[in-house]
Amino acid sequence: MHLYIGLIHYPVYNKNYQIIASAITTFDLHDIARLARTYDVNKFFVITPLDDQQALAERIKRHWTNGYGAKYNRHRKEAIELVEVIPSLEQAINEITKVEGEAPLVIATDVTIQNDRSISYERVKKIIEKENIILIFGTAWGLEKTVLERADYILEPILGRTDYNHLSVRAAAAIILDRLAGRY
Amino acid sequence: MHLYIGLIHYPVYNKNYQIIASAITTFDLHDIARLARTYDVNKFFVITPLDDQQALAERIKRHWTNGYGAKYNRHRKEAIELVEVIPSLEQAINEITKVEGEAPLVIATDVTIQNDRSISYERVKKIIEKENIILIFGTAWGLEKTVLERADYILEPILGRTDYNHLSVRAAAAIILDRLAGRY
Repeated sequence: MHLYIGLIHYPVYNKNYQIIASAITTFDLHDIARLARTYDVNKFFVITPLDDQQALAERIKRHWTNGYGAKYNRHRKEAIELVEVIPSLEQAINEITKVEGEAPLVIATDVTIQNDRSISYERVKKIIEKENIILIFGTAWGLEKTVLERADYILEPILGRTDYNHLSVRAAAAIILDRLAGRY
Repeated sequence: MHLYIGLIHYPVYNKNYQIIASAITTFDLHDIARLARTYDVNKFFVITPLDDQQALAERIKRHWTNGYGAKYNRHRKEAIELVEVIPSLEQAINEITKVEGEAPLVIATDVTIQNDRSISYERVKKIIEKENIILIFGTAWGLEKTVLERADYILEPILGRTDYNHLSVRAAAAIILDRLAGRY
């Protein structure tokens, strides 16, 4: 299994369903990097086309891998090392293709059921043992339509015990990675 | 099932295993409140004995339930309404006892295996359908020894695909609630 994840900051929706580039959230980088390290993810792509946001993400990465943070907390270092800042999903896919010798399956996550290419946790759990996969998460109000169209599959939404589906992307990533790669 | 959760800010350990009262983290309150709403948790106790920290947590709650935030984002309101700020675990237990007519089982979470009262996800999943439970999470470097001793059971640690066990409390709460109360 070679699993990659991508956190997409553009194109995503804002509250009014306009297409935006969202800002980097420090907590997302830390929490999701630690999840990536826990579930043996090969690389965590932080995807944003904005120069200043790339610089911010790189600065956070540097602080915890080379700077004061690396000495202060080596567990953070081990996790943040998995982060790669990259301008677009296509470039992340190209990079995986170079490393793995073939293009990864793109599996998107979303809060609504996308009937045509919807896939269950059970099926992805099996596929993950054989194929290279990039699992993508949207920030803000979720992945823009063209990104969902680009995906090979769209994972079923998370259901809890209510109809409430407004988790943070950090919590959603935790639940999804555990459902797909957890052992208990 | 009547499930309660508690996020404990005292007594917990710091990096050097000294006993401290940790500071409230806004992201913890938001992320865990939204998880509580998703998994049909009755109440989310934010536990801290410090007056200024209680005031901070109350201010966050008020902003999202009565203030500008309530109008801006009603999904946050629905989640944050589950928060109750309280000085100690004992007081949370007393309150649950009053409401439910009997004391809840106390199930602690920890990153190490506590052999004597360790309990599996599978077993708690069954118990949760019949009993009232408070599931407790530690902030900072985890729950202090006396709190673990006070618990009826200690949940098995989260295992991913590696031996890395340094998740944020937000991510751990997401994974644990999904393992115990998720449906998929």
